Amino acid sequence: MRAIASAAQIPGVKVLGMEGDRDHNRSVLTLAGESGVLVEAVFQAAATAAAQIDLRRHAGTHPRMGAVDVVPFIPLEGATMDDAVGAARQLGRRVGEELGIPVYLYERAASNPAHRNLADVRRGQFEGLAERLAADLPDYGPAVPHVSAGAVAIGARLPLIAFNVFLNTADIRVAQAVAKNVRHSGGGLSGVKALAMDTVSQGQVQVSLNLVDYPRTALPRAVEMVRQEALQYGVSVSRTELVGMMPVQALLDTARYYLQQPHLSMAQVLEWSLK
Amino acid sequence: MRAIASAAQIPGVKVLGMEGDRDHNRSVLTLAGESGVLVEAVFQAAATAAAQIDLRRHAGTHPRMGAVDVVPFIPLEGATMDDAVGAARQLGRRVGEELGIPVYLYERAASNPAHRNLADVRRGQFEGLAERLAADLPDYGPAVPHVSAGAVAIGARLPLIAFNVFLNTADIRVAQAVAKNVRHSGGGLSGVKALAMDTVSQGQVQVSLNLVDYPRTALPRAVEMVRQEALQYGVSVSRTELVGMMPVQALLDTARYYLQQPHLSMAQVLEWSLK
Repeated sequence: MRAIASAAQIPGVKVLGMEGDRDHNRSVLTLAGESGVLVEAVFQAAATAAAQIDLRRHAGTHPRMGAVDVVPFIPLEGATMDDAVGAARQLGRRVGEELGIPVYLYERAASNPAHRNLADVRRGQFEGLAERLAADLPDYGPAVPHVSAGAVAIGARLPLIAFNVFLNTADIRVAQAVAKNVRHSGGGLSGVKALAMDTVSQGQVQVSLNLVDYPRTALPRAVEMVRQEALQYGVSVSRTELVGMMPVQALLDTARYYLQQPHLSMAQVLEWSLK
Repeated sequence: MRAIASAAQIPGVKVLGMEGDRDHNRSVLTLAGESGVLVEAVFQAAATAAAQIDLRRHAGTHPRMGAVDVVPFIPLEGATMDDAVGAARQLGRRVGEELGIPVYLYERAASNPAHRNLADVRRGQFEGLAERLAADLPDYGPAVPHVSAGAVAIGARLPLIAFNVFLNTADIRVAQAVAKNVRHSGGGLSGVKALAMDTVSQGQVQVSLNLVDYPRTALPRAVEMVRQEALQYGVSVSRTELVGMMPVQALLDTARYYLQQPHLSMAQVLEWSLK
C-alpha cells in the first residue's frame, strides 16, 4: 500500500487519504489534483498495484474483479463532470494499452448503458472475468483478463459516501435483511446501496452502505434507518465507519439532524471561517 | 447592529459573525484579527454601540450591565493567552478614558480574583450598577455608571460554546430544574454553566448553556443531559441553537458521538482537506 501511494506522489497531486480494511481485504487511496497530473499519478499507482497484487491469491468479503478494482474520477472545485469523464477515458486508454489490463468505463463515463452501475460491471467478479470479457467487450485493452490483475472499472461520478455500520450480532442474516430493506432496490432509501458483509475478525456483521446521491439522502437518516431495522431483531448498532472521505455537507447534516438545529452553518465553525 | 458592525470593518479585521436574539434582546458580533487592529475595531464598534443603545429603555431575558455588555478576547492560531490579556487591558483603558464607561476586567484578564467569573461581575445588572461601582472599584474609567451605557466587562478566555436548548413547554420551572441539574455549580457537568430563560415570543422555555472548558465536556453530552433531565417532566427538546461560533472540534465531537465513530477525523472531510 505504501509503495502504491508513493508511486502517486507527483508534484501537483495531493494524497488526501489512504486506508485499508482487513476483512474487505481492500485499500482505498484518495488523490486530488488537476486533471492531467492526476491521471498520471493514478496511472503510476495502478501500475504499481498491478505489479504487486495477484488476485489469484486473494480473498476478501468485498466484491472485486481487479488488483486495481475501481477508479472513480469526481469533479471538485469548479471541475465539470465532462472533465472527469475525459480523465476516465485518458486513464482507461493508458491502462489498456500500456498495462494490458481490460478496462470497463462505468457510471457517467460509461459508453455502454449496461455498464452504468458498478455492481453490474463487477458481477461474476475476478473468477468470472474470462467468460464475461468474451461476451461483453471492454472499452480498452484486451478481451481476456490480465492473468494476475484481472480487469479495472474506471468511471466518473459525483462524490459518494461509503459507510459501514457494525451490528452487535454474528448472524449474517440480520445484516442481509437490514441491507435489503434499507437499499433503494429493496424499497428502501433512494440513492442508497447496501450490502451485508461478514466481518469475521471482529465477530460482528456489517451493513456496508453507499450513499450515491448526496445530499438527497442525508447520512444520519441512513444510519437511523439501519438502527431501526436492526432493532426488529433485537440487534443494536455497535459502531459505524466512514470509508475514505465524505463531503463537508455530510458532517454538517449529521450535526443539524442530531442537534435538532436545521440552520446550523459552516460559517459558525471558527476554524472553517478563518481558513 | 449594522452600524456597529460597519464601525468594526477596518483593514485586517474579519467579521466572522453577527447575530441577534429578540427574546434575549442581545446581539453578538464576532471579529478576528491581529491584536492591534482588532482592539481598534472593537473600540470603534463599542463607541458606536454606546452612542446608539440606551439601557435605561432596555428589557430582555439575558442578564446585562452595559450597552456593550461583555467583550472576550480569545487567542487563536498561535496567539497566546497573554496576547489576549494584553488586548483586553488595551481596550479597557481606551473605553474607560475615551468613552467614560467603567470597565471590569474578567476571567483570565481579571486583576481582582473576585472578578474572574463573569456572572459575579454582572450580578445586580445595569440597575444595580451605581451601588456596585461604589463598593467595587472598576479597573478603568469612572466609579459611577455611564448614564445610558452602564459598564463593560472586558476579558480574555479560551473559546466558549454558547448554546440554547428549547424545551416543548411554557413552564419556566422545568427549564430552571434542568439548568440547575446540568450545570457544574448544581452538581452537573464540569465546565458547564446553565440558565433558564423565558422565550416569550416562541412560547417555549429555554436552557441557555455555556460550555467553558471545551473540549473537556463535549457538546453532544451536554445536549443529551438536558434531554434526559427534561424527560423527567415529560418534556422533549424542540430544537437547539448555537449562539455565535463554535470550534470545529465541537462539530467533529457531535458527529463522532451520534454516529458512534470515535475515530472520525476532519482529514476525512473532503473540502477541509482541500482547503
